[in-house]
Amino acid sequence: MYYIGIDLGGTNIKAGVVDETGRIVAQAYAKTQAQRPYGDIVRDMAACVTMSMNHINITQGDIEAIGIGIPGLARQNDGSVIFCTNLGWKDIPLRTEMQKYLSKPVFIDNDATVAGYAESIAGVSKGYPCSVFLTLGTGTGGGIVINGRPWTGRHGIASELGHMTIALDGVPCTCGNDGCAERYTSASAIIRMARQECMTYTDSLLMKFAGGDMERINAKTVFDAAKAGDEVACRVFDHYCDHLAVLINNIICTLDPDMIVLGGGVSHAGEFLLDNVRRKIPRYLLYKELPYAELRLASLGNDAGIIGAAMLGRLYHTEGV
Amino acid sequence: MYYIGIDLGGTNIKAGVVDETGRIVAQAYAKTQAQRPYGDIVRDMAACVTMSMNHINITQGDIEAIGIGIPGLARQNDGSVIFCTNLGWKDIPLRTEMQKYLSKPVFIDNDATVAGYAESIAGVSKGYPCSVFLTLGTGTGGGIVINGRPWTGRHGIASELGHMTIALDGVPCTCGNDGCAERYTSASAIIRMARQECMTYTDSLLMKFAGGDMERINAKTVFDAAKAGDEVACRVFDHYCDHLAVLINNIICTLDPDMIVLGGGVSHAGEFLLDNVRRKIPRYLLYKELPYAELRLASLGNDAGIIGAAMLGRLYHTEGV
Repeated sequence: MYYIGIDLGGTNIKAGVVDETGRIVAQAYAKTQAQRPYGDIVRDMAACVTMSMNHINITQGDIEAIGIGIPGLARQNDGSVIFCTNLGWKDIPLRTEMQKYLSKPVFIDNDATVAGYAESIAGVSKGYPCSVFLTLGTGTGGGIVINGRPWTGRHGIASELGHMTIALDGVPCTCGNDGCAERYTSASAIIRMARQECMTYTDSLLMKFAGGDMERINAKTVFDAAKAGDEVACRVFDHYCDHLAVLINNIICTLDPDMIVLGGGVSHAGEFLLDNVRRKIPRYLLYKELPYAELRLASLGNDAGIIGAAMLGRLYHTEGV
Repeated sequence: MYYIGIDLGGTNIKAGVVDETGRIVAQAYAKTQAQRPYGDIVRDMAACVTMSMNHINITQGDIEAIGIGIPGLARQNDGSVIFCTNLGWKDIPLRTEMQKYLSKPVFIDNDATVAGYAESIAGVSKGYPCSVFLTLGTGTGGGIVINGRPWTGRHGIASELGHMTIALDGVPCTCGNDGCAERYTSASAIIRMARQECMTYTDSLLMKFAGGDMERINAKTVFDAAKAGDEVACRVFDHYCDHLAVLINNIICTLDPDMIVLGGGVSHAGEFLLDNVRRKIPRYLLYKELPYAELRLASLGNDAGIIGAAMLGRLYHTEGV
């Protein structure tokens, strides 16, 4: 038997057929075109599912359940979307709508949550009962797995790790608070810090890598310049790693998981990032002599969304939720 | 059948006989005299257990298991104490030592963890699967209950909520970090902030309540002066409530529990504290329209230590850990 995983993003719809072990055996894509009515988007999601099933000649009878990862919040009991900000969705009956096309059990959860769950089923944190996934992109998202299950809290608002306050009266956040971790640990944070430095140090290698245009600085430019030894980029990178270590220590102080997994665009900096953050963590630990969470890079990349959504379907369907 | 709960503190040893429902049916006390060799302290712990059993004429045969709450960290597998800073203990074989006197299963955990567990069994958070207990005293401690069980993390270092960083480059903490939540949310934090204000505003009601001596300001003086409308005390209190709301929001962002319970000395300020912190929280919430954790005062007071330790014994013994 197979499970369907759908990764609904602001730009793309991705659907895949996933086997019991969390391996994608077929997939299909479409553009989200987020400005359309939700009914059109759900119809295309269902079409992607059908296409991916056709790739390997299976039918609905071979499918146990459908899982959907959304860039927003879902209500478990009725399978509705509370909201997806970048799709403009609010109180959308996603399960009901999807079941017009596919009469299968449908389960929905946040995209970072399902990605973290995917890593714990088929990725780097496989077999670890408790892991925390950090997605470091435009924002900083989180996915928590406790006792082998995705944890979204008692009201569905858990694992918003990017909106933990780490700096009282710090940098204003888009959410309305000041000093959220996201403002110090996302790709946007790196860019902000780098541009700030480049206003003073205009002739850095970093500026050269950005073609002399501050607006063209991104996280990759900073990492590349830092790897090349540029002093300005190294300072920004060092600062960034410090802040990420603070967030990681906050996670350790709270949950003390087996593993913390770094995903999202920033994690493409790979071992360079990992080594530096690992070196920073001990300084912040409360119990410096005791073992603590392993820090690792996510291993499933963009497949995590499909796999995690499908495995969410497997989990809840198996349990008869 | 009964369970024994022992609350080991830096000043007092308290032991009690607890029934299946978490009710204390007998108890006994002794001074810890922390400077003594650990063998002497454990002997007195065992003596307290015997005394409490004698009060109600029961014998070891009526006891299922013994739980001990310690002001430090324990290793679950061998029942040893990793360390208790204020007792000067490091790698103490507490279970083995206790079993010289009482041949019963012995389980050990952190005092804030067992107090939080007690509230979830027999106190204010009874029946809630996920709750977070904050003990606001000299420091700020935490106890996490997930799926009805105490959560101490995968390496035993979870729930140190007072050592979450909430202020990058903030007030230096005794742990070596800067800006720990404890420095803004403990009784010590209130005192620090109040003394700072009183250096400028020397003729406040707060100073009068402290007999004109800044050194005599404590959390209660501040709350009393704030209740009486003293401007300086109100400012300190307001600031304190803000910071506590930030910590509470960090807990919501991470775990999203059913309930957050306030205990420890500061919580004696009661509804006055609760009302003010409750009013502050919505401002910090990421999802302002969605339900979130209830905020309540602990209800078991000093009994939480004995009850929680005994119920820890019940939990692990029943499960055959």
